[in-house]
This record gives sequence, C-alpha cells and structure tokens, in this order.
Amino acid sequence: MPIFDAVDDYISEHIRDWMGELRALCAIPSVSARHEAIDPCAELVSRMLERRGFATQVTPTADGGHPIVFGRAAGANRSRKLLFYNHYDVQPPEPLDLWQSPPFDLTERDGSVFARGSKDDKGEFVCRLAALDAVRAVTGTYPCDITWLAEGEEEVGSPHLPAWIDQHESELKVDAAIWEEGGIEVDETPIVRLGARGLLYVELSVKVLARDAHSGQANLLPNAAWRLAWALAWLKAPNEKIMIPGFYDAVRPPTPREEELLREAPKGAAEVMEEFGLKELLGGVTDVNRAYFTPTCNIAGIGAGYQGEGSKTVIPAAAMAKLDFRLVPDQDPHDIHAKLRRHLDERGFGDVQIEVLGAERPGLTDADAPVVKLVAEIGEEIYGKKPRITPLTGGTTP
Amino acid sequence: MPIFDAVDDYISEHIRDWMGELRALCAIPSVSARHEAIDPCAELVSRMLERRGFATQVTPTADGGHPIVFGRAAGANRSRKLLFYNHYDVQPPEPLDLWQSPPFDLTERDGSVFARGSKDDKGEFVCRLAALDAVRAVTGTYPCDITWLAEGEEEVGSPHLPAWIDQHESELKVDAAIWEEGGIEVDETPIVRLGARGLLYVELSVKVLARDAHSGQANLLPNAAWRLAWALAWLKAPNEKIMIPGFYDAVRPPTPREEELLREAPKGAAEVMEEFGLKELLGGVTDVNRAYFTPTCNIAGIGAGYQGEGSKTVIPAAAMAKLDFRLVPDQDPHDIHAKLRRHLDERGFGDVQIEVLGAERPGLTDADAPVVKLVAEIGEEIYGKKPRITPLTGGTTP
Repeated sequence: MPIFDAVDDYISEHIRDWMGELRALCAIPSVSARHEAIDPCAELVSRMLERRGFATQVTPTADGGHPIVFGRAAGANRSRKLLFYNHYDVQPPEPLDLWQSPPFDLTERDGSVFARGSKDDKGEFVCRLAALDAVRAVTGTYPCDITWLAEGEEEVGSPHLPAWIDQHESELKVDAAIWEEGGIEVDETPIVRLGARGLLYVELSVKVLARDAHSGQANLLPNAAWRLAWALAWLKAPNEKIMIPGFYDAVRPPTPREEELLREAPKGAAEVMEEFGLKELLGGVTDVNRAYFTPTCNIAGIGAGYQGEGSKTVIPAAAMAKLDFRLVPDQDPHDIHAKLRRHLDERGFGDVQIEVLGAERPGLTDADAPVVKLVAEIGEEIYGKKPRITPLTGGTTP
Repeated sequence: MPIFDAVDDYISEHIRDWMGELRALCAIPSVSARHEAIDPCAELVSRMLERRGFATQVTPTADGGHPIVFGRAAGANRSRKLLFYNHYDVQPPEPLDLWQSPPFDLTERDGSVFARGSKDDKGEFVCRLAALDAVRAVTGTYPCDITWLAEGEEEVGSPHLPAWIDQHESELKVDAAIWEEGGIEVDETPIVRLGARGLLYVELSVKVLARDAHSGQANLLPNAAWRLAWALAWLKAPNEKIMIPGFYDAVRPPTPREEELLREAPKGAAEVMEEFGLKELLGGVTDVNRAYFTPTCNIAGIGAGYQGEGSKTVIPAAAMAKLDFRLVPDQDPHDIHAKLRRHLDERGFGDVQIEVLGAERPGLTDADAPVVKLVAEIGEEIYGKKPRITPLTGGTTP
C-alpha cells in the first residue's frame, strides 16, 4: 500500500480521537485580549506535543506576556529542520447573540464544526498533529527534525514575540517554517500564501470633563465624542485616502514577479460581495489580491456616552476608538505610530491619547524559494490541481 | 402665630413622613428610556395625590405611551386655578460604577439624599406635596383650585404629551402653571426661570454589511463606524458651528427685555468650570445664561464594533450615534429634523437612518406676566433676597 493511502486510512480510523482533542482545546476560553485562561491553554498545548514525543518548554515572555510553547522532536533525516508556527489564543467571542451554539463548546452542525478557535488556530494545530501522528504510525518516525512554536498573543499583535525570538535565535534556525495561513478555494484549488501585511493597532482615547454632564450644558462644555469624531475625520477621507502625512511614503508597488502572481491569482470579488451582501466592493475593487497591496485604516470599535435603549441627554466625558492599520511592504508600524501622533498634534488633537496595542511588520517569502516549490508540488499531488500562489494576504501574522 | 411660621413648624414635625414617601417613590426604577416600572410608578403617584383629597385619573396615551396622572382638588378661592407639572420618570442610572449607593435606594449622606429621581423630579413632587400638606393642616384647605399633571416621558422628550394636551385642553385652563425647574443659587438667591429650550433627539444608525468582518478585508468592505464618523463631521465643525443648511434660520437674538434680564443674571462661568475641572468653557463662554440663546448639536452616545479590553480586528457592520439638539426661540424640531435629513442626503449619507426619539418646541413665559411678579415677591419674602429672573435655561421641559 502506498504511504499516502496508509496515512489516509490511519486518519479515517482515528478522526474522532483528534476531534476529542480539539474539543478539549476549544473548551479553554484563551482570549488573549483579556488575558483569560492563557496558562492552562499553554499547558494543554505543551502536553499535546509531549504526548507525541516532543521535548517541550513553556517559556515565559517579558513584562507579563503570554507564555510561548516551544517543542522539538527528532526525525529520520536529521539534516532537515521544519518549523510549525501556531497560536493558542483566540479573539473575543462577542457579539454573543450571533452564535448559534456556545462559542467554547465545539458543536458539529451541517458537516462542519463550530467553536471559537476551531479555525484560527486551534483547528489547524490539531490537523498538523493528526498528520504527524499518521505519518509516524505508518513510517515509524517523523520524516525530519520538527520544531514547534505556539504563542498566545497572535490575536493581539504578538507584542512579546520579537524579543523572545531575539533571545532564542539559535534554536530557531530551520530550513523552512510553515505558518498558520493557507487554504483551499471554492473550486478546491489549494492556495500557497507568501506574505502577510503588517499591523499597527491603537486605542485612541480622549477625556475632556471630570464627569459626564447634562446636555443642556452643551454650549459650555467640551464633548469627548465630538473630539474623537473630528479627530477620526482627519485620519481618513470618505474616498478612503488616509490623510496622515507621510503615511504612504514607504509603500512600494508590486514587483514584476508579484505582478505575475497577481495575474494568475483569482480575482475573488464576486465571492466577497455575496458573503457580505454587497453590490460592489469598496471603491469598486474587482481584484481582491491586488487590493491587499494597499494599506488600510480601520475603525474596529468606537464608544462613548449612552448606548442603551431610548434617549439620555448626556455629554460624554470620555470617548475611545480602536483603530487598526494594515501595513504593506515596506511600511514600519513604529514609523506610522510616530506619524499618527504628529498628525493629531498638528491638527489640534493633542488631547487624543494613543495607546499601542499591537505593532507588526509586513512579512514576505521569496516566491522562488525551494520550500515554496516543494509545497506547491505536494499541493498539486494531493489535490490534483496546481496551487495558486498568492503574493500577499489581507491579514497579519507575526 | 403667623401662617408661615405654623407651616414651617408643621414641615419640621413631619419631614420624616415625606422622606418615607420619597424613598418609596424612588424605589420604583421608572426608567422611561427602557419603559421600565412605568405603570406601578404612575399608580403610586396617583395614590399619593388621592391621599391628599385629589380626584385623580391615570389616563393612557396613544400608541403605548406612558400614562399621565391627572388630578384636581378644590381650594378656598374657586376662581383661581394653579397647575403643578411633574414627571415620574427618570433617566437611566448608568454608568453604575459611579454611584456610591444603589441608584434606586434613597440614601442619606452628608446631609443630602441620593437616589435617581431624588432630584429631577420625584423629590420636587414630594416637596410640593409637603408644602400643600402643611398649608392644608394650618389653614384647613388649599388656597385655590389645584390641577396636577404628572407625566412619565419627560426624560425621553414627552413624545405623547402634545396629543394628550390637545384632547384635554378644556381641563387644562388655569391661571398659572408651576413647572419642575427653578432653584437656589450658591449665594442663596432664588431663581425664577421663564423659559426652556426645545429639543430634537435622534438616533442615527447605519448598517453596511450582512455581518461584522475581519479587518484584513478593510480594502474591500465598507465600515459602518467610518460612515458614521464622516457623517458626524459634516454636522458640526470643531469651532462648534452647526453645518446643517438653514439650521440657524429661525434663531432670534434676545429681545430688549431679555437683554435686561441677562444683564442682571449672574454669569455663572466660574462655578461650571470648577464643577467639571475646566480652565475655560467651550469657545471661551463667560456668560452662561447668554450662551443658552444659542442652539446646540450634542453627541449623547456613539457605539460600534469591539469596545472591550485589548484589541479585536473587526470591521463593524453597524454603528449608531445618539444626538440631541437644544433649540432656541423660534426653532421648530420638525423643521430641524427635515433639514438634518436633507443635509445627510446631500452630503452622500442617505444610508444613515434617522429615528426621532424626542421632539419639543422651546417655551417662554412673558417676564412681565402677573404670576412671574407674584412668584418673585414670594421668593423675596421667603429667602430675604430679590430673586433673579432667568430668561432661558439650557434644558428642556415639555
């Protein structure tokens, strides 16, 4: 029996076991934004690796960052080293009323599983373990040395990862790293993603009064919500042009090789329009992959004053907005932060505070690297279709 | 013993009884914005009047509005009729963490009482009852016929009151009406307030997506929070100028008589600055009473997307803002609503919905009316200081 068939058989026979492991992992509400259930989740990830013969460490990060699970196992070919990256943290489950089943209780419905983290990224982690289990069961060993890095702050911009990597550089020397992203398109074509955008995530806040006031005094007292609305209107125009001076300075156009990949990549606009009930995409975008070469300024949340039912006549003393900027090659989040601060100051919004909640650089892999070719070949062998190579995706990875 | 002394003695002897009545009234969380505990509160107000010999009716209003308590009692002089206006509803108690004691549990602290409604307006209602009780105990009767109107929607703009008044016009013919407002200044000078501003309270809302999306797609998808921020920035400029065409058309300057009153009225700026921790008032206002002759556009609340701790990279599908406009003579809330709608449409914000939650006209009493003179004379007799007559206040009354 060819090895792949034996691997497939093993997977079919043991699928319920891995589903049980995924259920247990998703049951831990490891919401990094709130520092919830982080340590028990890291411990479980470590135990799952140890069960597979990995030597693991759960290493703390500086300044109360979430621990990083680091594991290593030897394989048949000791001269090749492969790294898997995953993260065990998840986004907050809100808004709760849109969940059809409890967010941390893995539920099977219509042939799919639903739980926070069942995709992005606990599901991917368990899938990789399943693949390794099957290969080891069939061949008796792992094919090469394997290094595993699972962090707990991906969803908040991995603030402590760079310093940790600096400290562990020698242990991270590998031939290739497989990241969490990738996917299969609707037409079952596998996708190989080469790059991800960077991120600057900030919370803007402004406080103008000792306490909320009655709005009969709105001639007399400043209003934090107005201050914030005006500040936001200076950041991006309704035509989506970001108005921070110098914001686009480091942005470069796609290279000729990237242009080649963009021509081959699907346009994707129709699927996105259908998913979100739109007649057209923002600014008439028709090529989704090309659009990712443009940076963004997004309001992820805003809040001030009375938001309950009916009316309350109040002047909000404080207001806040959460903003994320997706950055493209070769933008630097720290440079963008400095430019944002200067712009707000120059426009008269020195009272608007900026707290940086996440900062990551964009990252790119060479489209012609050997590992890209290898992954593409394997993809074609398994799926029977030539994979599409995407130069840059909309999201961010550390 | 002079009548006033006897009245004072009676009040001193019975103060704890009225405090008990106030405690019971404040215990009912009659939050009109949420339609909470409205009927039991109207019933209790009605019973409190009946206990004083009033013939009362709790009359429903159209379209599920909150009932109006209407009471009448005869007095010694049947040819004079005085109306008292109160409201039994209160504003929502949020933010709850700023309360030192439970909002619906009347608590005595540092010589004051604290509860939602203990001022504005349950406290004022009980004070009036106390005064009437004392006068009746001392003189055996009320001095004149008394009509009482207590409504349950003042805090949400009294939407059903105008239609009710149209239906009950004949029963409302009185010589004078005493409203809920008034006060004593820090220097113990009593204030007689002649007018109140009008109000237009609207909720703006916009929905641009079938559901929230990941912000990696911010190049592709519209963002409801951005739509709302841009729409708001078109309503009022940072110099506080309201940019709705025609908004100021009906605004008139103070009359010569109002100018005279404004000159006599205290400026009040220092007290407001101290209360809210400010170095100056908005736009350098120094005369608080004069500022009330200018209309306002106030953001009372705004909300969209993720507002919890930390970061969540989301594109909000929906966003809302609550706005109140305080209107001055001779602005009309329905006219302002129409102009707001037209302005949003013309600026490309036809997708921003407007729900009217309250609409009231400004109201003024002639400074030279006999009842104003009478109230001023009584004020001087009681407080030993000539009352200050304020032409217009910042708030709104039905």
